[in-house]
Amino acid sequence: MSKEFDVVVIGAGPGGYVAAIRAAQLGLNAACIEYNSYADPKGEVRLGGTCLNVGCIPSKALLQSSELFEQANHSFVMHGISVDSPRMDVGVMMKRKNNIVDQLTSGIRGLFKKNKVTLLSGLGSFAGREDEKWKIAVTRNGETEHVMAKHVIVATGSRARHLPDIPVDNEVICDNEGALAFDGAPKRLGVIGAGVIGLELGSVWKRLGAEVTILEAAPDFLSAADAAITKEAWKTFTAKQKLGIKLGVKIGKVERTADGVRVEYELKDEQKVLECDRLIVSVGRIPNTDGLNADAVGLKVSDRGFIEVDEQCRTNLANVWAVGDVVPGPMLAHKGMEEGVMVAECIAGQKGHVNHDTVPWVIYTHPEIAWVGKTEAQLKAAGIEFKAGQIPFAANGRALGQGDTTGFVRMYACAETDRILGVHVIGNNASELIAEAVVAMEFGACSEDIARICHAHPTLSEVMHEAALACDKRPLHF
Amino acid sequence: MSKEFDVVVIGAGPGGYVAAIRAAQLGLNAACIEYNSYADPKGEVRLGGTCLNVGCIPSKALLQSSELFEQANHSFVMHGISVDSPRMDVGVMMKRKNNIVDQLTSGIRGLFKKNKVTLLSGLGSFAGREDEKWKIAVTRNGETEHVMAKHVIVATGSRARHLPDIPVDNEVICDNEGALAFDGAPKRLGVIGAGVIGLELGSVWKRLGAEVTILEAAPDFLSAADAAITKEAWKTFTAKQKLGIKLGVKIGKVERTADGVRVEYELKDEQKVLECDRLIVSVGRIPNTDGLNADAVGLKVSDRGFIEVDEQCRTNLANVWAVGDVVPGPMLAHKGMEEGVMVAECIAGQKGHVNHDTVPWVIYTHPEIAWVGKTEAQLKAAGIEFKAGQIPFAANGRALGQGDTTGFVRMYACAETDRILGVHVIGNNASELIAEAVVAMEFGACSEDIARICHAHPTLSEVMHEAALACDKRPLHF
Repeated sequence: MSKEFDVVVIGAGPGGYVAAIRAAQLGLNAACIEYNSYADPKGEVRLGGTCLNVGCIPSKALLQSSELFEQANHSFVMHGISVDSPRMDVGVMMKRKNNIVDQLTSGIRGLFKKNKVTLLSGLGSFAGREDEKWKIAVTRNGETEHVMAKHVIVATGSRARHLPDIPVDNEVICDNEGALAFDGAPKRLGVIGAGVIGLELGSVWKRLGAEVTILEAAPDFLSAADAAITKEAWKTFTAKQKLGIKLGVKIGKVERTADGVRVEYELKDEQKVLECDRLIVSVGRIPNTDGLNADAVGLKVSDRGFIEVDEQCRTNLANVWAVGDVVPGPMLAHKGMEEGVMVAECIAGQKGHVNHDTVPWVIYTHPEIAWVGKTEAQLKAAGIEFKAGQIPFAANGRALGQGDTTGFVRMYACAETDRILGVHVIGNNASELIAEAVVAMEFGACSEDIARICHAHPTLSEVMHEAALACDKRPLHF
Repeated sequence: MSKEFDVVVIGAGPGGYVAAIRAAQLGLNAACIEYNSYADPKGEVRLGGTCLNVGCIPSKALLQSSELFEQANHSFVMHGISVDSPRMDVGVMMKRKNNIVDQLTSGIRGLFKKNKVTLLSGLGSFAGREDEKWKIAVTRNGETEHVMAKHVIVATGSRARHLPDIPVDNEVICDNEGALAFDGAPKRLGVIGAGVIGLELGSVWKRLGAEVTILEAAPDFLSAADAAITKEAWKTFTAKQKLGIKLGVKIGKVERTADGVRVEYELKDEQKVLECDRLIVSVGRIPNTDGLNADAVGLKVSDRGFIEVDEQCRTNLANVWAVGDVVPGPMLAHKGMEEGVMVAECIAGQKGHVNHDTVPWVIYTHPEIAWVGKTEAQLKAAGIEFKAGQIPFAANGRALGQGDTTGFVRMYACAETDRILGVHVIGNNASELIAEAVVAMEFGACSEDIARICHAHPTLSEVMHEAALACDKRPLHF
């Protein structure tokens, strides 16, 4: 007899495992299906998805280690600290990263136990509908088990997009998975794609000594971000950090050579060649829907491969929901988690909701970039009259104390109502500073609210305070 | 003929300079009086008060430098970074600190110019009342000039409390001023007082190699903080960081010796002696009112030396106001700044207000400590039923990535209404994380609000999110 659940979640990434845990907390009998064992030495299924295994978490571990190495090489001197010839043991750095991933992925197993979520190891797919329940196949090592589910939540995530003529082997030509596991810093690193992943991983290896060239097809840089931020980021990454970023590139032939990779490309009608030891291909991610047997049950998938959903993540099929990277919207772990909570609550009869207008974005370069709400271009396109307040970290005592004054906070507020419409931060700790702005925007705050709220001194958050004051043209410290 | 102003501010610390700038922004003719030149090489008056010259700002600069040195010595190894024998050049460290102070103090001169605030160099005091205006004496190098003011804002700040039998020379026996200017790490450092300043400066010199003993008269540790925080801080500072903190100490005879200081003290009825090379005396601060000529004009000063004020910082005298450390309340720069803004706005006919319930506290040890609102003890004493949510940083992916998982976030919410009553953070970056909690509390947020607001992943702010979820006993990641 097949097992029966109130909720079966397909995929144990951030959207999926959170949905399963929340469903269980609400008294539903929940299971979560996962097949991917990533690099697990015992071949055991690993929970946490891309984010935890080959995305956010391992990249942040490497970014931290490499940033400390960078500080030792370049920042220590101003503090009066001398160290002789800092050396990085990439093996130790990688082991630390792996330990963190191990700890968190097994932590999710613990959370499943604590919350009584059943883990089903295998590839989940739709096998049909019986008695108003969904039949779900769980296939592992050629064997298939079936479970029945009143509700199904598809949380199958995304994977790196590969280019047709570039054979990713994850040794020399790598996507995010291989690039997180280099055994040493390549002398010459090529990166195709100057998006978040390309910039973060390019930064890691640049700090560890690689000469990095990033080739981007788009004519503009970080086009999702605010233009003021982009300009500052471009200046910092190229002029200060010497990341060789080339925009408007057309990639030609890419081939393995005896000692690396040869990339032909066209830049402003000129034919060029990049010779490098390793190549990272980070040209976006595509949703994982192919293993789902979606067609057989009539699950609607868009031309671009995303599962179509309404505002509460309902698909076209009764009691089938989808969350995270596999549905439209920014591919951000926390967006998937919020959707997972919403869907679990909707299934339990509550009124779940995700405010997509206040989902923060973060890029973990150094300086970090974070924002929430609208960019200047979006406001202009929408014809909204706004005022802007921008304050540099260079005017802030804490930033000076930390020896890190790059960047600024830029805030937009409605010209008529003063309501905050967008907050954009580039600078050290931007990822944490944005939380205040998200909370403020969730409460419909005006710039005057932030201007009138006490901010601890000396902190970087005072720059947020001053940016709010600057919206009213009355900064106190600038 | 004497000069005449709408507003004369006595004291150019955070409360004073901000009050003067805000008054000028509101169209008032404002002046600010300052006499202290601190260690200015040319003997010029320096703006920014204790905070900027010998308090928050220089201590944070030294805390940063010493923390990097600590990381080089102890944290690098786990990242795979090896450095040979890190050395700290205290002279360079001090010069960087001095440069930051110089930059900020001259920055305030720039802000005065930009906002058209007149700087009057000298010691300000009351010289009488004429035609409904206050006559203020500005004395410098024995010469006195008088100015007339419709409104006076007293912002004279505070100074280190000294003990009767301990002669502070700021070379061997030091208060905060001397302790920020040591020419090298003492081998054995004694500290009297385990408050914020003692802990911060003790930490700086401990990291640079001093053996640190802190003698505290009170029987309990950091009694203003939440008990859970205090317990964690005690464990971290004493067991991990080896700060030798002794509580319930009665200080006896303190005398200079040939090679340092000898401190006799009593601990649990035992007589003990501490021999050290340098001694920091950090036993609180007292308000600066003695030079004001307060008695002559009848300005009410309490037994403890604070100027008595109402909720809007009005003193007992018409059109005389007082803000910052010289009035009751926590001696925090940002509290003084908020009061300065409030008073300037009240003078300009606006409705100024400071919400003292949402003024955040920060201690810049490592881990940092920050809180806003009520402690558990305060809630119990007030008979308020509450629920608590506490989540450790050890459960957070960003903290693991940063290799720094000490501490936790603890949130209190009203048992009946769910309104957030207090948020307490001990951990890396607590000073910045608290900003979100302050904004939330200003909006009267419930724990469920924070629980339902999207927090970027992976960030430390997710621990705040989880603590809010934990108030409802449904954390997702713990």
